[in-house]
Amino acid sequence: MRKSIATVSVSGTLTEKLEAIAAAGFDGVEIFENDLLACPLSPEEVRARAADLGLTIDLYQPFRDFEAVPPDVLAGNLRRAEHKFLMMERLGADLLLVCSNVSPAAVADDELAAEQLRLLAERAAEHGIRVAYEALAWGRHVNEYLHAWRVVRLADHPSLGTCLDSFHILSRGSDPIGIEAIPGEKIFFLQLADAPQLAMDVLQWSRHYRCFPGQGTFDLAGLVASVRRTGYAGPLSLEVFNDVFRQASAKRTALDGMRSLIALEQSLTGVTHPAAPAGFAFAELADTGALGGVLAALGFARTGTHSTKPVELWEQGDARLLLNTTGADPALIALGMDSPDPAGAAKHAESLLSPVLPRERAYEEAELEAVAAPDGTEIFFCDDAWLTDFAPTGPVPGAVTAIDHVALTQPWHYFDEAALFYRNVLGLQPQESLDLPDPYGLLRSKAMSGPDSGVRMVVNIAQVGVGNLPWQHVALACDDVVAVARRLRREHPGLLMPIPGNYYDDLEARQEVDPELRHLGVLYDRDERGGEFLQLYTVTVGRVFFEIVQRTGGYDGYGARNAPIRLAVQHARGH
Amino acid sequence: MRKSIATVSVSGTLTEKLEAIAAAGFDGVEIFENDLLACPLSPEEVRARAADLGLTIDLYQPFRDFEAVPPDVLAGNLRRAEHKFLMMERLGADLLLVCSNVSPAAVADDELAAEQLRLLAERAAEHGIRVAYEALAWGRHVNEYLHAWRVVRLADHPSLGTCLDSFHILSRGSDPIGIEAIPGEKIFFLQLADAPQLAMDVLQWSRHYRCFPGQGTFDLAGLVASVRRTGYAGPLSLEVFNDVFRQASAKRTALDGMRSLIALEQSLTGVTHPAAPAGFAFAELADTGALGGVLAALGFARTGTHSTKPVELWEQGDARLLLNTTGADPALIALGMDSPDPAGAAKHAESLLSPVLPRERAYEEAELEAVAAPDGTEIFFCDDAWLTDFAPTGPVPGAVTAIDHVALTQPWHYFDEAALFYRNVLGLQPQESLDLPDPYGLLRSKAMSGPDSGVRMVVNIAQVGVGNLPWQHVALACDDVVAVARRLRREHPGLLMPIPGNYYDDLEARQEVDPELRHLGVLYDRDERGGEFLQLYTVTVGRVFFEIVQRTGGYDGYGARNAPIRLAVQHARGH
Repeated sequence: MRKSIATVSVSGTLTEKLEAIAAAGFDGVEIFENDLLACPLSPEEVRARAADLGLTIDLYQPFRDFEAVPPDVLAGNLRRAEHKFLMMERLGADLLLVCSNVSPAAVADDELAAEQLRLLAERAAEHGIRVAYEALAWGRHVNEYLHAWRVVRLADHPSLGTCLDSFHILSRGSDPIGIEAIPGEKIFFLQLADAPQLAMDVLQWSRHYRCFPGQGTFDLAGLVASVRRTGYAGPLSLEVFNDVFRQASAKRTALDGMRSLIALEQSLTGVTHPAAPAGFAFAELADTGALGGVLAALGFARTGTHSTKPVELWEQGDARLLLNTTGADPALIALGMDSPDPAGAAKHAESLLSPVLPRERAYEEAELEAVAAPDGTEIFFCDDAWLTDFAPTGPVPGAVTAIDHVALTQPWHYFDEAALFYRNVLGLQPQESLDLPDPYGLLRSKAMSGPDSGVRMVVNIAQVGVGNLPWQHVALACDDVVAVARRLRREHPGLLMPIPGNYYDDLEARQEVDPELRHLGVLYDRDERGGEFLQLYTVTVGRVFFEIVQRTGGYDGYGARNAPIRLAVQHARGH
Repeated sequence: MRKSIATVSVSGTLTEKLEAIAAAGFDGVEIFENDLLACPLSPEEVRARAADLGLTIDLYQPFRDFEAVPPDVLAGNLRRAEHKFLMMERLGADLLLVCSNVSPAAVADDELAAEQLRLLAERAAEHGIRVAYEALAWGRHVNEYLHAWRVVRLADHPSLGTCLDSFHILSRGSDPIGIEAIPGEKIFFLQLADAPQLAMDVLQWSRHYRCFPGQGTFDLAGLVASVRRTGYAGPLSLEVFNDVFRQASAKRTALDGMRSLIALEQSLTGVTHPAAPAGFAFAELADTGALGGVLAALGFARTGTHSTKPVELWEQGDARLLLNTTGADPALIALGMDSPDPAGAAKHAESLLSPVLPRERAYEEAELEAVAAPDGTEIFFCDDAWLTDFAPTGPVPGAVTAIDHVALTQPWHYFDEAALFYRNVLGLQPQESLDLPDPYGLLRSKAMSGPDSGVRMVVNIAQVGVGNLPWQHVALACDDVVAVARRLRREHPGLLMPIPGNYYDDLEARQEVDPELRHLGVLYDRDERGGEFLQLYTVTVGRVFFEIVQRTGGYDGYGARNAPIRLAVQHARGH
């Protein structure tokens, strides 16, 4: 299907918006009126610019507060419409979005609304223009999409159809299956936006918190499937009002919008996704020499060195960490995914516009397919072949059994982009999204996991002022955190993060716990079904720290209750 | 009255919070539980630290989900309470806040709630501790302050009283006059928070958008007056959950909280405020030489030079601008306020903790009283004496009659602080608060004005990404913008900001306007009562530009509809 986007969805001047939209590969645009009004180019010049960029102008929007009004108001509204029709002819736009009236002057009279919209459509037709009538979720009388369709059918004019907007439909909880009652040729346009579930006034929700399909919680695939059943042949068009996107790079936002539409289309057309990764093949850390000692203390052993690159392999159980000693400060720089079909996974990532990373290859090196995540982390799709480059010495038994999860910190403009990337490219399912108190702000945190929780990731953004340090960490699974803690307290007492006694006073007030947890600095959480979680943190080294975790009873979280304690200690220690 | 603040209201570690709170002059604190849990100091150490700082610990909070529960839950809750009582003894806190139960386990049974709270109070009394029961606005069964009081009276224990929280009372629209039904000695504590009117879930509103008294729209003076009538003798205590305050400087936030309480107290105790300024005595701009030419083109003449400082006086009508040629880039650096009682105004500002500016004085110079606004702008309180330092040559007639308003851009962490400053220190009344679309974000804008609109100010914060430039401007009033525009287009065509033709296409679609506006680049707005506003902008010079405005028919706004056009042009021109 053709793909469009409203200019309001990305930042910048109208010219910058059009360039970013074209660069992302969209076929067309909706011109948002305010973007045109503020633009120094004439409508003819905008038309030429769009054409040069290969973009059609699919919609001009919005035209407000037109229908169901007293005669004197109607006269002014028609005058206003005539001006807009003339401008649209100059712009080369032949479809006008009319939003349902929100004015107190509007009358609750479908016959009157239909009569006046028919009049508008007649005038539009004289200019070769069609009118798409849309129910705003906060329209004064018409605020349900089926009500807008009722009015359009009553008006019965070939130049009048309806425009469907997923936000207006799904934010009200309306069932989109009713769309199938509308003949496809009377659906003149389809606007798509997703949104997180927020308990707020729908107008504010719509104006500030819309996001791209797959970034929120609406079932857009279901809605679009209903639209396709009608025979609708117009574009899928993104119309997203989002305070963060307004401030972000237009090129990057447009590209992410395109990625969201491609993923949506894939889900509709039955494109088979490659299987999600079964686990982490490795996590790669930049290192200047400090991390090897930490890993050794944690029970890892260096089992190999890359045949051509300054990269060491450290292993314990099924946990494999690479230390890249090229000199960068400690940071999590790459993740290897155990992939049943690395080439297919990389091709899928590429189909979703993920930047494929060039990779220097040497004789005998494994061919690793890698793409860049939004924050620049390199994601490798691996089978077992990659290990041969390291010629590992053999298994290292130990308390640590595997990588439990990794936590990455995202640039705050791109939190939604990261969530979409990990969901669509890696096939992870988003779980809890939380605001965690930090001494200097809030940490927004979203957990995601793959099938059987083989891959767990947490992406964080820090909305903090003073002392904003983007920590990243690797959490290692083990079956007996207490034993690990005992050994580390004895052998490497400086390695573990000190946990305040007050934390344990509170924990012991809430429930009976092993008093040794306090002595060892092990944190504890319990879920509603009795699942338990034990956590042990190392101090930070550069941007990085390690966590040792133990899950029992099906505990599926990440100890969110304890995160503020950890953050406060890290800040207080100046890390 | 004694003044306290909850530690959750400011940023940082508990130690940093206590230091900032003491530095701001508070008498006591509420210790917010999470702040203690994350603190490496023991309760005894926190107690000593607070004592060293001269702070009493007035409340420990919150204790949740205690009352109206089945017997097995009660046993666990009492166990939890005993742990907290022991900790409070170590902390030296003798008042515990108990919030009304929000758990699904709670039963709608006032008798049961009262019985269990009486039991809790008995246990507390054994530790010398009292319990203050508060109705959360989202409490499961008890969510009205009078309901909490009903339960407390039913329980009838000397160690049990109620805690009133202005947010929980006023966010629900409850009438605070009912507070007068409660005996003062049964009000154990009073928490104060203001909030802007927001259409959202009350829990989110409370957790993220509370602000200090005077920064929102609640009638806190009325509520506190009712509390005082009961004979309540405890502290006024601020408890503010605010996402911005969380990220701001603790010292600055605490000081602003104190300012808000002083202003609240002044309004209650009948402190006579000095009269608000009648108008602008002057606006002072830093200049490197570029602004004189702009002012001359606008019809200003240089009428004097300061006797000892490198400052020029430029006049036209009653508009007086000072150019400070000390070499800083163009920026608005000071405002002179026509004050009927400069000394009294300065003393009032000082009572509200405004930093009084040291001022080098020379023989014969007028004694100007000045304080610093939150963004560093110097605010002078003046009578006519200041002019003598410039020995002005005499009046300069011209089209410009006065300063209409000034617009300042605030650091975004301190928008609420600025609003409070201009409201309390200058006596301006806040008016519209708007989110204006900017090509790269949103501009949050709040207008304020004094009696008879003699002083009008707009404070803006830019929530923008790329190209964030904090423009400031001086708007000059005149009686005939069109005549001014004609002359400037003829004589100084490069001085005026070009306005897109598309803006006029839209304006003319909406209403009949003089076609010359398009030719001249004059912007137009009309209010609902027919008042009209004409605006003409100069190009920017450094951070500064000028606006010429004409108000007719009682127009009282600032052309908000046109601001996005202006912002887009400024961004497009790279200014």
